[in-house]
Amino acid sequence: MDKLDAIFAPETIAVVGASTQKGKVGHDIFANILSGGFKGTLYPVNPKAKSVLSVKCYTSITGIPDPIDLAMIILPPKAALQAVKDCIAKGIKGVVIVSAGFKEVGGEGALIEKEIKTLCADARIRLVGPNCLGVINPSPKVSLNASFSARMPNPGNVSFISQSGALCTAVLDYAADKGFGFSKFISIGNKADVDELDLLRYYYNDPDTHVVMIYMEELSRSAEEFIAEVRQMTSGTNPTHVIAIKSGSSDAGAKAAASHTGALAGSDALYDAIFTMSGILRCVTVNQLFDYAQAFAANKYPTGDRIAIITNAGGPGIIATDMSEQSGLKLAKFSDETIKELKKYLPPTANFQNPVDVIGDAAKDRYKNTLATVLSDRGVDAVLIILTPQSMTDAIGTAEAIVNIAKNSIKPIVCSFMGVVDVSDGVKLLQQHKIPVYQFPESAARSLGALREGMKWLFRKILPQFEMEYDIAKAKQIIETYLSEGRMVLGELDGNELLKCYGFKVLPMALSKNKGEACNIAAKLGFPVVMKIVSPDILHKSDAGGVVVGVEDDKGVEKAFETIMKKAGAYNPDARIEGVLIQKMVPKGKEVILGLSKDPVFGHAVMFGLGGIFVEVYKDVAFRLSPMGRNVARRMIKSIKGYPILKGLRGEKPSDIEIIEKHIVSLKAMADNHPMIKELDINPLFVHDEGEGATVADIIIRLENEE
Amino acid sequence: MDKLDAIFAPETIAVVGASTQKGKVGHDIFANILSGGFKGTLYPVNPKAKSVLSVKCYTSITGIPDPIDLAMIILPPKAALQAVKDCIAKGIKGVVIVSAGFKEVGGEGALIEKEIKTLCADARIRLVGPNCLGVINPSPKVSLNASFSARMPNPGNVSFISQSGALCTAVLDYAADKGFGFSKFISIGNKADVDELDLLRYYYNDPDTHVVMIYMEELSRSAEEFIAEVRQMTSGTNPTHVIAIKSGSSDAGAKAAASHTGALAGSDALYDAIFTMSGILRCVTVNQLFDYAQAFAANKYPTGDRIAIITNAGGPGIIATDMSEQSGLKLAKFSDETIKELKKYLPPTANFQNPVDVIGDAAKDRYKNTLATVLSDRGVDAVLIILTPQSMTDAIGTAEAIVNIAKNSIKPIVCSFMGVVDVSDGVKLLQQHKIPVYQFPESAARSLGALREGMKWLFRKILPQFEMEYDIAKAKQIIETYLSEGRMVLGELDGNELLKCYGFKVLPMALSKNKGEACNIAAKLGFPVVMKIVSPDILHKSDAGGVVVGVEDDKGVEKAFETIMKKAGAYNPDARIEGVLIQKMVPKGKEVILGLSKDPVFGHAVMFGLGGIFVEVYKDVAFRLSPMGRNVARRMIKSIKGYPILKGLRGEKPSDIEIIEKHIVSLKAMADNHPMIKELDINPLFVHDEGEGATVADIIIRLENEE
Repeated sequence: MDKLDAIFAPETIAVVGASTQKGKVGHDIFANILSGGFKGTLYPVNPKAKSVLSVKCYTSITGIPDPIDLAMIILPPKAALQAVKDCIAKGIKGVVIVSAGFKEVGGEGALIEKEIKTLCADARIRLVGPNCLGVINPSPKVSLNASFSARMPNPGNVSFISQSGALCTAVLDYAADKGFGFSKFISIGNKADVDELDLLRYYYNDPDTHVVMIYMEELSRSAEEFIAEVRQMTSGTNPTHVIAIKSGSSDAGAKAAASHTGALAGSDALYDAIFTMSGILRCVTVNQLFDYAQAFAANKYPTGDRIAIITNAGGPGIIATDMSEQSGLKLAKFSDETIKELKKYLPPTANFQNPVDVIGDAAKDRYKNTLATVLSDRGVDAVLIILTPQSMTDAIGTAEAIVNIAKNSIKPIVCSFMGVVDVSDGVKLLQQHKIPVYQFPESAARSLGALREGMKWLFRKILPQFEMEYDIAKAKQIIETYLSEGRMVLGELDGNELLKCYGFKVLPMALSKNKGEACNIAAKLGFPVVMKIVSPDILHKSDAGGVVVGVEDDKGVEKAFETIMKKAGAYNPDARIEGVLIQKMVPKGKEVILGLSKDPVFGHAVMFGLGGIFVEVYKDVAFRLSPMGRNVARRMIKSIKGYPILKGLRGEKPSDIEIIEKHIVSLKAMADNHPMIKELDINPLFVHDEGEGATVADIIIRLENEE
Repeated sequence: MDKLDAIFAPETIAVVGASTQKGKVGHDIFANILSGGFKGTLYPVNPKAKSVLSVKCYTSITGIPDPIDLAMIILPPKAALQAVKDCIAKGIKGVVIVSAGFKEVGGEGALIEKEIKTLCADARIRLVGPNCLGVINPSPKVSLNASFSARMPNPGNVSFISQSGALCTAVLDYAADKGFGFSKFISIGNKADVDELDLLRYYYNDPDTHVVMIYMEELSRSAEEFIAEVRQMTSGTNPTHVIAIKSGSSDAGAKAAASHTGALAGSDALYDAIFTMSGILRCVTVNQLFDYAQAFAANKYPTGDRIAIITNAGGPGIIATDMSEQSGLKLAKFSDETIKELKKYLPPTANFQNPVDVIGDAAKDRYKNTLATVLSDRGVDAVLIILTPQSMTDAIGTAEAIVNIAKNSIKPIVCSFMGVVDVSDGVKLLQQHKIPVYQFPESAARSLGALREGMKWLFRKILPQFEMEYDIAKAKQIIETYLSEGRMVLGELDGNELLKCYGFKVLPMALSKNKGEACNIAAKLGFPVVMKIVSPDILHKSDAGGVVVGVEDDKGVEKAFETIMKKAGAYNPDARIEGVLIQKMVPKGKEVILGLSKDPVFGHAVMFGLGGIFVEVYKDVAFRLSPMGRNVARRMIKSIKGYPILKGLRGEKPSDIEIIEKHIVSLKAMADNHPMIKELDINPLFVHDEGEGATVADIIIRLENEE
């Protein structure tokens, strides 16, 4: 038996702090369990009461003569601590602490929470909360409403995890209004013990949970552990679909970062990475969360992106078409047979093309025949049905017809029965039979698009990993030399050496101390060359006038050397000048940026995007965390808007995308091997045509001392 | 008296085609007017009935002994035509034809609609429909529900215009569920006569209408006329706020266009231009339409973007913060006095910074005191209040407190009372007092953002127009020469001449027939030069290998001449080669694209965007139609995402934005003066630093014969 069974499906519950006074949490939770029809046995604990709501009361949990699975504790911190000790003595299996006043207020509350956490861990008792709404399991086998909220939801196959208790009451209220059903419902509060990942594991193994909705404020555990496990749960032949809403202001730009990567690596970008890598669909509103959950709960998925729309009104059909296209779907082109068949059933004024307009006076038969016909068209992957209430409309009859046809179809069907009152019977029937139904067609179309996204994740291509070798020892030596000298920033010369250890191609280059050396080096490298100032005190070389490109001959080299030295001196008279770097001109390619940044919570993130203005203005970049691999890198590259530029526009040759994949994987390996790398920008990396690799054109690396 | 008064506020109505048979439209509309409590007098017309619903029936409209303001016609086309003739004979003032079977089915129906339209125009009778749901005016003075829908909405200050009848029933149903009130509600169907602009004019002058919601499928009249009038209505000291949802698939890319501008000028982009230029806020979902209408209906606007959030739960407060920032708002920083004051009323565990957390056990007083305090902070422009149902929550008491404070505040207050059932009394009270209230905080935040957008439009800066002179005669001559020779495409040489007539700066250049000429020209222009093939048969010169840039000396010129000729011959052996153009190299600048395209419905549109990949991949461009002027051009330039690039990144000098404004205005003037210009791409235009103008680097113009 999973330890969390004691929380979600206990046979016996003690409510410690049960109160006789209506309106008190200790009373209301007890009352809700009682009136919710809990199938097990309930024991109030309160030293001052003989009974609570007619149920015999015990002075302490240890005094209860029977074994107890779950203790619901509604007591202030100090009393809660004693209650937990009693629970351990009693040998209970799970604890939910509802009360607040712990970590979230700091001070003594936080200390007590820590002590309770340790006690429970040592005793191998699972702990939910503190500072939470409680637990609900509407399954008729359990029928447990151990929460603030008097509202017991319908049973369903969607489970909910909320980090906000207040949101729970609103969500339960909203769900009741929508006839939405839940499998398990939990508020996790301060997450002293049980957190999202524990619950996802439990839900994944729960045959009654098919979809999980999460409201998350922050992920408390390792992103790598979370991603590695959750992406397994959302994949395979029996996946759990996870939909999440994450709140918490983006802190991008708030950090003082020396690199582009550091400046863009706000927590919101990293959460995007966590969700994308885990196969979690991210929503921005609670409405969307419910809309998508409803679609996934129906457990039917489109194998392609071609949808058919059936409507009894033109306008809403157009709205659905628009939103379908915006959601990555396209209108199916019907076969000749389909159109021939439709003409049998529909009046001549109908539209037989997609979207099919069955005309305002359609009763249930037209819907039935049309739905059956377009469903059997091989070119149709999903169907969206719109019903607007008009004089001949038969909402309930149409809903029945849809339910009957849907039974025998593996293709998803979603509906929009527009309006509230006039169509409500039909809507209820559809909901009972798990046909997703929405008030407006745009929600229906968007939810179908979400299903399609889910399918893309599920059937993503998985390629074998790259086999690459790195010169880790040399890289380590370079970094250690810097750190031992107290130098934290690697410029181009040593930065390139480091990159070479990880398979990057860099430009031939050498440092010159004077004009003569510069000319000799340039001659050896071959013209044209680029010349750049080298100084530990000048990071932004271009700003200092320290870069000259396209130097064509000896005379040019001498002139450029003079100019660079003069400007560098003017820029920072105290700068220690090491010399001028002579570098071969970069061969042609597309400019991209690759970067690393180190987040205090999530560790190293890799960034990829198009270089230059694309980074600065359009912020068209993507981040990924561990676990990194070739497939993560591939999808990362594809995820940016500018991807078509790399694929080649207007007959251009495609760029070498595979080398970018390799470099992304290698950069992450570098970060793992050398955690003292704090920030890194390869900006730009010139990516050449397919098969021709890429060349680093500039690099900056910032180190930090490890703690 | 406005002619539309006869439609919205008639004193007498004849229902022509009134039926005794329940379920028929002719019966239901009559019944709805009757049971809706119409304040005037109602006459059924039906030759076969003695009475309808106990009301004496007339055999024809001419037989009614009293004068009639409005005729509701529910008859098939032929009978409707006769009824209209009778109406004219009777001298009625307005007609609504509800029945379908007219223009939308084509054939005879379309012909009859045309005839009816002409008859009504000649008789100066306003006509609504055919093929519509009808008209509703819930004002207690009129109380008219002349529609299919049995549902009479509450009175309010929002009017609705719908091109889809089916959407109307759903919208009425939805509004009833939300307690949403309307001033006037109309379905305009085929728009044979009365259309959006007529109604906007009427609503603008209607003291009971403050906000207009439009559902539009297509604009039937001139965009220029529409924009010029509507932007007056949405401006000034007594504006009407217009919010629209437009459906109709984007056809971008579907057209075979030779230019970037033509390819991007899909109808959706042009509707964006129409709405933006008119000051109409565009929504994408019906939910949003209602959300925003509710916010504007309250008639209070933020003068800045700094909002305060008050919440009794952390999570929803964070959600609201996120969405506020995404909607262009920012959290206000409270003054020390405000924080001091808050500390008087709130418990020590509260959060006194923005968002203010009044803690879960807040009853009404904490809300009241907190709201009063933050409202009086000068740094706060608007307040968002979140209430989640918890044990101590007093939804109705809090609503009362909000209503009382809002009465004396000019700053907008929006609420999110989360949940449905538990907070419904409070929600109703807020609705009654026109305090915008939403189910989830993200909708509240987004609606505040919409209000802020509305304010930005209202207080937009208006600069005096440019005074510019053009050489129209010369331009005309160039174009006429081309057309008379049957040549439809102007290349660079003549294209530049045309642009010069409109104040564009072009590069010095000349055509060379042979190497010798080429060298002479290059020497005169000064090195480096660019060399380009000139042939009416080679449009995409680069693709043909017909462009060499950066030619440095005589030897280079000779070599480039040979290469260009050889490649052009290989590309198209039959091409008529006119020679090689020698052009001075463009001085440094930012690449932008300026274009013209001609839409069959809306006429010439100007396009502006950043050049190169920004156009092709990011589609970061904006379109504008007539009426064009400096202020339109300014806002157009500012509207693209890449605008910061022109303002200058990282200490770069700003580009000459004023010259772009001028060029946009001039391009539109060019299109107006020479309507035979079908498409034009200036791609790129190099924009130099502020005050230094811009230089055309390439140009292609396509003409068409005027019809």
